[in-house]
Amino acid sequence: MSEAARFLADRSLAWAKSDGAQPSEKLVEFAGRVCYMSFSDDTSRIRFPHQAYLRNLIEQGHESVLEHANWSFLVDGVSRAFTHQLVRHRVGFSFSQLSQQYHDESDVAFVEPAGMSARDREAWQKAVEATRSAYIGLLEQGDDLPGAELHPKEALRQRRSIARSVLPAATETAIFVTANARALRHFLLLRGTIEGDLEMRAVACALLPEVARDAPSLFADIKSVVHHDNAEIIEA
Amino acid sequence: MSEAARFLADRSLAWAKSDGAQPSEKLVEFAGRVCYMSFSDDTSRIRFPHQAYLRNLIEQGHESVLEHANWSFLVDGVSRAFTHQLVRHRVGFSFSQLSQQYHDESDVAFVEPAGMSARDREAWQKAVEATRSAYIGLLEQGDDLPGAELHPKEALRQRRSIARSVLPAATETAIFVTANARALRHFLLLRGTIEGDLEMRAVACALLPEVARDAPSLFADIKSVVHHDNAEIIEA
Amino acid sequence: MSEAARFLADRSLAWAKSDGAQPSEKLVEFAGRVCYMSFSDDTSRIRFPHQAYLRNLIEQGHESVLEHANWSFLVDGVSRAFTHQLVRHRVGFSFSQLSQQYHDESDVAFVEPAGMSARDREAWQKAVEATRSAYIGLLEQGDDLPGAELHPKEALRQRRSIARSVLPAATETAIFVTANARALRHFLLLRGTIEGDLEMRAVACALLPEVARDAPSLFADIKSVVHHDNAEIIEA
Amino acid sequence: MSEAARFLADRSLAWAKSDGAQPSEKLVEFAGRVCYMSFSDDTSRIRFPHQAYLRNLIEQGHESVLEHANWSFLVDGVSRAFTHQLVRHRVGFSFSQLSQQYHDESDVAFVEPAGMSARDREAWQKAVEATRSAYIGLLEQGDDLPGAELHPKEALRQRRSIARSVLPAATETAIFVTANARALRHFLLLRGTIEGDLEMRAVACALLPEVARDAPSLFADIKSVVHHDNAEIIEA
Repeated sequence: MSEAARFLADRSLAWAKSDGAQPSEKLVEFAGRVCYMSFSDDTSRIRFPHQAYLRNLIEQGHESVLEHANWSFLVDGVSRAFTHQLVRHRVGFSFSQLSQQYHDESDVAFVEPAGMSARDREAWQKAVEATRSAYIGLLEQGDDLPGAELHPKEALRQRRSIARSVLPAATETAIFVTANARALRHFLLLRGTIEGDLEMRAVACALLPEVARDAPSLFADIKSVVHHDNAEIIEA
Repeated sequence: MSEAARFLADRSLAWAKSDGAQPSEKLVEFAGRVCYMSFSDDTSRIRFPHQAYLRNLIEQGHESVLEHANWSFLVDGVSRAFTHQLVRHRVGFSFSQLSQQYHDESDVAFVEPAGMSARDREAWQKAVEATRSAYIGLLEQGDDLPGAELHPKEALRQRRSIARSVLPAATETAIFVTANARALRHFLLLRGTIEGDLEMRAVACALLPEVARDAPSLFADIKSVVHHDNAEIIEA
Repeated sequence: MSEAARFLADRSLAWAKSDGAQPSEKLVEFAGRVCYMSFSDDTSRIRFPHQAYLRNLIEQGHESVLEHANWSFLVDGVSRAFTHQLVRHRVGFSFSQLSQQYHDESDVAFVEPAGMSARDREAWQKAVEATRSAYIGLLEQGDDLPGAELHPKEALRQRRSIARSVLPAATETAIFVTANARALRHFLLLRGTIEGDLEMRAVACALLPEVARDAPSLFADIKSVVHHDNAEIIEA
Repeated sequence: MSEAARFLADRSLAWAKSDGAQPSEKLVEFAGRVCYMSFSDDTSRIRFPHQAYLRNLIEQGHESVLEHANWSFLVDGVSRAFTHQLVRHRVGFSFSQLSQQYHDESDVAFVEPAGMSARDREAWQKAVEATRSAYIGLLEQGDDLPGAELHPKEALRQRRSIARSVLPAATETAIFVTANARALRHFLLLRGTIEGDLEMRAVACALLPEVARDAPSLFADIKSVVHHDNAEIIEA
């Protein structure tokens, strides 16, 4: 942010950046200080080091400044049941997801839900493998489609739409996610705290250390702990 | 809009409303005229009747005024494959969807994809019914869950998450949708025009006459026609 | 919502609508009940009448269902200082505002801020009227513009941009606003509660009775009261 | 993106990254390839180098993948007339703006609109300086405010709201902006192309080289040229 340096110099201001602040933290702190022009030419007059400054922003509910810090993740090994819920979080999130209409799912994996007994697991495994067989069968039929006059690419898309309709909610998918700190905090606190939603909790608890390492002060009030069901859960 | 009448009277303005304009059309036209204060105390000086005024807004790309007209629909008889794509349209859309974590899906129906031969259909039917049996089996097991100490409501949610993981993309769902005219136009033109995406086309072609009846001038340039695959498709 | 009736009849369900529920309240309640399919064929088994049902949704934080109820307002007699803040509320809001680039502001009014003494008022009045004179002068100069080769419409837009640059933040504007119940609740609770922000408080306190009359249960927990500075303020 | 490397290795896929691709370009390309799982274990089978791949995404209208690339800018030396328009671009944009309710504007600068003659400039300068005097006068009055019982911080906010109400649209402000490539492309093409809107054009034409240097392939189809009014304009 050389521009920021020039902006401050032009106004004979200085910004007492705490040692050890991470780039994402600086971005948010700078945005916050622009709102109040709360820089100073006397660094001893800056009231808060960056941790305290950012904690104060969050406590005061001045969350819009958190939107300037963004992260991108590849989330894979998750089910389409999970992504169907995830993509409801649209404000502050961007998604690019593997399309079943464009991708051959004959070799797809299935994501085993947590909490199953050995007997459950056996029944579950049999059920999902049967859907794969049905998928392959439907994909490879295609002898008598009424849509034969479609553009070949669209005909294939239609055929895959037919076949994928038997694939279960457990079908593994991959989704590339970009989200800002405000949206991530909302997601973690809303979705990571629900006892009965184990896949959501698992993803939330995997994301937290990634973003907390990058910007500790933006997530300092959010922790993951082991719940009494032996899986991690978010606590605020 | 008595307020609108008062606003105009205060300024000695008048608004030559075309006979037959619908409430949604008036809302959009009024919003457009506020931007330019293009009312008149001499109605003969109003250049366009409402159809032409609204067509001109759309042709000029002044689409933000279309956001003032909203519709709510219950979309049912559709698959979760469809809703997973639908909910990606977040700007200008609001969704409330039947939750498989809260609802017992033992009696759920499945949405048959278009374009199947008789042989396909038989295989498809067998596959989806097998997932229902698996669902019921997994829901009714539950003897040895490690999450037994959960709050009963959350334990049930977890059990349903396990069971629903075998339900296919074809599983029927219901979703209550509110969307504005700008978002709907974008949806119809983007999603209703794809040859290989028959369920999406079917929903788009079912929505169009509903909104076109309510606000003909906002959708006058969008038509549905029968495509050479014998299903409807959107044309602009 | 005849569709809703058909949907319920198909499933042998019924919906015990409380007498006196308003259309916006029904819309939100219906959306909420779709999520859990919490209709009933035995109306005595419905646990809550609509007031309690909607209060419970709000208390549980299930706010997305509030997005289905929308209102449109013409907000006039407000300053551009106010609208610059208002349009920051984008999620769930749509705006169409009087453009100073398209509208001749020679006769514009100015919105007097609250809290001025008689002496302040005199100075304020003199200051804003001086800007109007400067505006008219700049608009009517134009003899030697370098942009003379512009399209006449764009040349006029540029000339108005020059002239309006001297108009004050107090300049009166009009803005047509559509917002949903979730966004409005957020706006009222965030913006209507700030002691020092009198114009924002005044607009919030004028909107509240409008929406509360239309959908009492969606705003039952929000009140406006007279503050010790003798102006209304929002309380939750 | 070590995660990306692991994801590909697990699937025995490879990604033929073109030499010279920038981080933002890689982010978007990776997102696009996730949607179609269009990686390859034989890099010679990858059809497009990154420039062609990204150009194709943009030409096909697959713009959602552009949301993964974000930039943050400090935009200063601009007028509040400009920022009032800018903040209408909310989708894909985040803003943190200098608040006139928190900041003493006694020493504020004013942004001179382009296109003024010498005579205009003299009148303009006189007009804006008069508003500064009025601002200072109103800020320093305050002897008889009815809001004397307010919290001192809120009383000061109210006093500043009164005083700033006379400050003109030309008043200089600073705004910290984060935006993604999709939103920026939309902004540049919509706002940078309007003949009569010189400040908007100037900001658009200043942003373009910044983002084009960082991610040439995402903006390759957008150029700025000198218009016949001697100011830069965006062309696509």
